[in-house]
Amino acid sequence: MADISDLKLFYAAKRTVTKNGKEINYTSVSLASMIVLEEVAAEYEAIAINFASNEQRSETYLSMNPKGRVPTLATNKGILTETPAILLFVAQSYPQFGLAPIADIFELAKLQSFNSYLCSTVHVNHAHFARSSRWTDSESAIAECVKKVPSNMTESFNLIESEYFKGPWVMGDAYTIADAYLYTVSGWLSAYDVALEQFPKIYDHYQRMNARPAVIATWAKHQ
Amino acid sequence: MADISDLKLFYAAKRTVTKNGKEINYTSVSLASMIVLEEVAAEYEAIAINFASNEQRSETYLSMNPKGRVPTLATNKGILTETPAILLFVAQSYPQFGLAPIADIFELAKLQSFNSYLCSTVHVNHAHFARSSRWTDSESAIAECVKKVPSNMTESFNLIESEYFKGPWVMGDAYTIADAYLYTVSGWLSAYDVALEQFPKIYDHYQRMNARPAVIATWAKHQ
Repeated sequence: MADISDLKLFYAAKRTVTKNGKEINYTSVSLASMIVLEEVAAEYEAIAINFASNEQRSETYLSMNPKGRVPTLATNKGILTETPAILLFVAQSYPQFGLAPIADIFELAKLQSFNSYLCSTVHVNHAHFARSSRWTDSESAIAECVKKVPSNMTESFNLIESEYFKGPWVMGDAYTIADAYLYTVSGWLSAYDVALEQFPKIYDHYQRMNARPAVIATWAKHQ
Repeated sequence: MADISDLKLFYAAKRTVTKNGKEINYTSVSLASMIVLEEVAAEYEAIAINFASNEQRSETYLSMNPKGRVPTLATNKGILTETPAILLFVAQSYPQFGLAPIADIFELAKLQSFNSYLCSTVHVNHAHFARSSRWTDSESAIAECVKKVPSNMTESFNLIESEYFKGPWVMGDAYTIADAYLYTVSGWLSAYDVALEQFPKIYDHYQRMNARPAVIATWAKHQ
């Protein structure tokens, strides 16, 4: 049994925004952390942070996570941020669920490499759709960055499909934390009309993820 | 003794480019991986990849690392990419050097969180200086993105200085892989005239890193 308690996951509540005349449902990367907590049947409290009212920038939230981002996982040992770190922490805290190849240093590094690519390249490509203002204050430059999001995401997903997705799960036969992470990112593509169907293995993965009890439980809980 | 052999680190050779009339020395993030290999006294071959001639896009390199980025660590077990994954792999392969709190799941998660922030936020802020073309094809938008790099990097370093750097090393008393990573990123600020001196703890850290035998050995080897 894991030596952790008092888990609270702060995640971004779903938002529906209209962009280019289209209604888009945004789900943040914090979804991945919630899925893995569900996979290990962790006792935790899920606390929705309202980005529409900028709650992630409130004094209370910033005192816990000065980055003003999600997810934040509060534990009896302290606060954790950043998706790859939270996912591995959950996998290591509940080793009986086998969500990471903890005993194999090289295989673990392959898993970390995959997750690191998602956070440092794929998520960043995606972030230029709605969050380009992080990197420029110019309205015209923001609009220019938005234009390149579909081709960048297509390139990233082509690379995952052809080079990194082993099948049936990301890492091969074993379902791992990388699957929850990939599923979360896969869900973003429709916002800018990149069809997941063009990546057959990832599309099939997305459908199988949708059927997992942990994913169904996550969506039921996720506000 | 680590169960790995045949290590080859492919890293970006230093480049000097002129930008806004100023000569700038670029060192890539692969420096961090070389430092930790030196810290554990690993037997490895360091292979410089010439970005000036676009060698990272050569067929030979892409067959090994389809992302066309550095670093790449070749091992007897296979290929690894992505800095956070390579750093943890080296720390776990040479546990006697104590470069990561492997036995403490929560402390390891804090370390991974720090490294994840560097790769997904700080490195990305930096990349908008010379690599904005990843996210937009518009020359004017690229120029606009460059403008915001100094303030974004200042914000990131203020956050590290005030919230995450424990001292005397990133994680506190123990020198870890996060120190090699932070040192590498700290070295980038001068390119856009952000003075490291304004972050006293990180500035002091940078000087102490410069004096480490592993860092001296790295610079001697680094082409």
